[in-house]
Order: sequence, then structure tokens, then C-alpha cells
Amino acid sequence: MVPPGPELLARARLLVAPELSASLVREVERITGRRAEPLEDGAAGSDPLLCVGAALPGSVRAAERLLWFHSVNAGTDPLLAAGPWPAGALLTRTVGRMGERIAQYVLGWVLAECQAVPEYVAQHARAEWRRLPTELVAGQTALVYGTGRIGGAVAGLLRSCGVRTVGVGRTARTKAPPPGFDRVIGAGGGAGPEREEPEGAARADAEAEELAGARWVVGALPLTGVTEGFFGAGRFAAVRGATFVNVGRGATVDLGALEAALRGGGVRSAVLDVLAEEPAAPDDPVWRLPRTVITSHSAGITADEDVAVDFAACWEAVREGRRPELAVDVGRGY
Amino acid sequence: MVPPGPELLARARLLVAPELSASLVREVERITGRRAEPLEDGAAGSDPLLCVGAALPGSVRAAERLLWFHSVNAGTDPLLAAGPWPAGALLTRTVGRMGERIAQYVLGWVLAECQAVPEYVAQHARAEWRRLPTELVAGQTALVYGTGRIGGAVAGLLRSCGVRTVGVGRTARTKAPPPGFDRVIGAGGGAGPEREEPEGAARADAEAEELAGARWVVGALPLTGVTEGFFGAGRFAAVRGATFVNVGRGATVDLGALEAALRGGGVRSAVLDVLAEEPAAPDDPVWRLPRTVITSHSAGITADEDVAVDFAACWEAVREGRRPELAVDVGRGY
Repeated sequence: MVPPGPELLARARLLVAPELSASLVREVERITGRRAEPLEDGAAGSDPLLCVGAALPGSVRAAERLLWFHSVNAGTDPLLAAGPWPAGALLTRTVGRMGERIAQYVLGWVLAECQAVPEYVAQHARAEWRRLPTELVAGQTALVYGTGRIGGAVAGLLRSCGVRTVGVGRTARTKAPPPGFDRVIGAGGGAGPEREEPEGAARADAEAEELAGARWVVGALPLTGVTEGFFGAGRFAAVRGATFVNVGRGATVDLGALEAALRGGGVRSAVLDVLAEEPAAPDDPVWRLPRTVITSHSAGITADEDVAVDFAACWEAVREGRRPELAVDVGRGY
Repeated sequence: MVPPGPELLARARLLVAPELSASLVREVERITGRRAEPLEDGAAGSDPLLCVGAALPGSVRAAERLLWFHSVNAGTDPLLAAGPWPAGALLTRTVGRMGERIAQYVLGWVLAECQAVPEYVAQHARAEWRRLPTELVAGQTALVYGTGRIGGAVAGLLRSCGVRTVGVGRTARTKAPPPGFDRVIGAGGGAGPEREEPEGAARADAEAEELAGARWVVGALPLTGVTEGFFGAGRFAAVRGATFVNVGRGATVDLGALEAALRGGGVRSAVLDVLAEEPAAPDDPVWRLPRTVITSHSAGITADEDVAVDFAACWEAVREGRRPELAVDVGRGY
């Protein structure tokens, strides 16, 4: 995807979603040097459009005047799932300090389990002084699915506590693993039939071996065609007592397979920040998964400052004719 | 203190406390090249003694034949409080991976509070999906009292999460702060009257300023004459919304002053791994401190491996005529 040229960019109208705070709108106006108009269905005119928001109204998507859409979120799967992406339109996203935030979420829940935080809180409520088993996380292994900015931040923080970190990406890295990882292996296929191919089978073996030795399995995957139901019966069957933490997308997990693995004991416990359907209703069976805690998609919240900083970086790249680092490959999905 | 000479060491009998595991006893026998006998009251003979254990029986203490006592614990205050230390006897201690363990305990409880772990666990039990406020610990300040191995490990791990770490030691460090710390200041006196002296007053001002800006105040102090009641009304009055975590010694805290600060709101919450009297009975008023969790002296448990590794290092130093790094200054108390 070629970034929009200077002539089009100069003419582009700035449309911002109504949910953006007034201070963030002012900041976006300052960066682009133009007044913001509301991003809403039926935005009129024939000028090219530069939009900032979470969702793309149908009429703007169809109008074929979309030059650039900057997502205030990191996950752009809802944007891409809502219809074909307008040809030639640049899509950028906000990652912000999301890697850092999600990493602290993961480490927080990992250490809370090691230190028996929920059990000690319950014991305190009973005025009971009793030593509970705790774990030193140093020396344990964590498999982190996703080796991008977020997976890398998660791995890097776990590693600072002495955890051995194995990244699982689309392909193995034969060169030095990226920062934060002790090793990177290729996933043994997605949820689909490619696991049956010879190379996929070899990768699946390496992955199964690491899954068996892991104390922690962290999902930090985007939702794409390949990753839907990615954590299914096949992967969970290889787990031997690890805790599963999902901070990626809810639909990457087959909840039936997770439930079976929790009941069978292969998966020790689970922490799910994301669900395929959010919010979960009080009668949703997901609440009855054994040894599981569900949090409310709070691991990677985006602050206004994150949007402003990332949009400014994209703006600078586009102005210089470069593809922004935060540009989404709409075919790949992230 | 001069380490015992080779002639005395060669003649020394090895006495080990009955609570040591059989495998640890075998390891200590292997290191010293002699058979272990039980460390108990009335151990007879006139040979010099090398003891490994937690407590020193009265008759051994009085016998004036004690050459060297290796403590299986890090805190040696009970040993020193039980009577005058035998003149010339070397006292060494086990720190092991205690710094690492205590650091993970502190970070675990810090992140559990940032990530609202207890609140999410409670919400989950009600099948309630609601976003709770969370905090990014990066950019916050932690004051760590104690700048030795344990305080340094705590600070280093907090720092890997982007926390600004300020150590509080006996004296300020004008040179570069030790690893793990962004800054080290001197404590503005102990619990006693030295706070009134001019230099102490200036230090107290610097300390009060840091206490006011801190989000976390971590106690990792040994118990000595100076540190008894160290965290009292004066220090707590300077706190503006920090959480207090104590992993040092229970008696360093004036619980009445802590309770007043919790009720007044200056101290946000407290996590106490140590109490002056352990275990706390079910009717102990300490269970009723507001916004407090008490754990059961579990932050810095010592494993057999820790004792073996640290004793072996001390043995090697003594054999080479060096003062072991883990030797305790019995006058200072640690």
C-alpha cells in the first residue's frame, strides 16, 4: 500500500469519531493543521477523507473517497470484518503503551497466581494465618503466541523475572530471536488443515514439546482467518499443567476445548481478558469454566495520549512518503 | 571478626539442628568433610564447634567453644536477641534466592493491586462483566527501605516495570546509586531522637518529600535497635496515598500508627508479610486493619538448596582465610 501523496493529503478533510475526547480532537487538529468534522454516516462532499476513530460508517466506507483511516484501537479486526476495505485506503492503528500495559497485566496475573494472592485475600477474610505454597516464577517457561510488539513486550517483562520465554510466530526464526524471547518457533499450523502437511507436522511437534514443558501459555494473537479457533483441542491436548492467559482476541479460543482441558486437568487454570462476545451476560456459561477468572477487556486500554502519539508518528511518516510502521496489512489482518 | 583459622576449623565438630532435612545434612557433611552430630543442649566435649541451624541452644552459646554458626535464615535478630553473642564466634547467614523471592512477592502484590486482581476475582464470582480501573505501574515511585541485597533485588525488579526506585539507607549515597535504584537517600533518623539533630532533620525533609510522592513504600529492613518501631507516626504522616508493603521484620512497624494512617487515608492500603508476633491468632486486632492483607511470612522462604549454596560459599571463604560475604556484623545486627 502506497501512502497518500502530498496533494491528496493537503486537500483531505479530517473526520473524527464522536467518542473522541475534546482534548484528543484538538491534538489531532494541531497535528494535521485543519479543523475536525464529525465522522458519521452521510458525510457529504467529494474531498478525500482522513478519519480517526474506532469504526467506519457504512457510507464513508462505500464512498471510495477514503484516503486514510487511523484506528484508535490496536485490533482492527472489527473494521476489516465489517466489509471489504476501500481499495487504496491506508489503515493505521494505535498501539501506544499497549504492549507495556498488556505485559503488566500478564505479569500481574502470573505473579498473583505464584503468590497465591486470591487465596491469601480469602484467608485474610477468615483471620487465618497459614502458610500457603507459593512459586518462584524464575526458571519456568512461558509460551507467548504472537511475536509482534505486544507479544514481545509480554515476553520481555516475563523474562525480567527470570522466565524462559518461547515465542510462537507464523514462522520459526532461525536467526537470533527478537528482544524478549529466548527462542521463537513457528506455529504448527492454525486451526485448519495445514497441520497435516509435512513441514506443519514437524512444527507441530516442536510446539507440542514446548507446550508440554510450559508453566504459562499466553495468547496475544490478532483475529484473522488463520487464528479463529486457534487455541483448540489439538493445542490444549499438548498442555501439561500450564495456566492459559488470553490477552489477544476472544475468538482465537475454542471455549469448548478449553473447558474440556480445564476439566481434564491439562490446563491448570485460565485468565481470559477477551471473549468472542463481550460483555458476557450473567447467564453466559463462560462464567462456569473451572479455575478461571474473566476480566473485562481491560489489559490493553488505550489512553488519549497513546492515540495522539501514534497518530503523530503515522502523520510524520506519511508526510515523508514512508509507509507508517503502524500501517495495517489489510490482507494479513494486522 | 577474624574467620576461624585452619587448625581450629580442621578440629571443629559439625553440629546440625534436628529440623534440617536429611538431604541437606548430607550436603553439609559433603562440604565440610565430616560427620554431622545433633545440635542440642548439652552437646559435650571441648572441641571447637561449627553449627548449622536456626537457633543456638543455651549450653552451646555459653560453652565458649563456638567457632562458627551458620544460620539457615536471613534474619539473625532472634539469634542475637537471645543473649550476648559468644566472643570471637563467626556468624554467617543464608540469603539464597531470598532477594529474588521477596522481589517477586513485592512485585506480585504491587501488580495485583494495579490490576485489581482481588476485585476481579470477586466480580467473577458474581458473574459480573464490568471494567474496573487499573493502573500502569510504570512512572510511579517506590520507596524501598533497605538498600542491601534484598532491598536491591526488590528495587531492581520494580524498575524493570518502569518504576522509579528510591532507596532509603542508613546514609545517603552521593556516588552513583547501587544497581536497581534511581536514587538513594539517608533515612531521617530511626524511631528515636536522632531525628531532632540538624543533619537528621535535613534528611527527614528529603525523606518526607519522597514519601509524599511515592505510590509504594516497601519495608525491607532488618530488626535492630535502630529499626524497632521505625515505621511510626512520623513517617506515616508524610505518606500521601501510598500502599505500604512490609517484607522486613514485623517489629519495625508501629501497628497503631499504621492503623491511624490507614483510617486517615494517608496510607492507601497495606500488605504485611511479617508481624512482630507470628502466627497471628484469629482474635488478633491486626486482622481488622482496614484495606490490609496479611500473608504468613511467605515472601522469603528458604529452600534447602539456598542453605547449601550459601554455606558452601562461606566455607570456601573461611578456608581461604577471607571474611565470608554473608558474615553478620553482630554489633550492627545484620
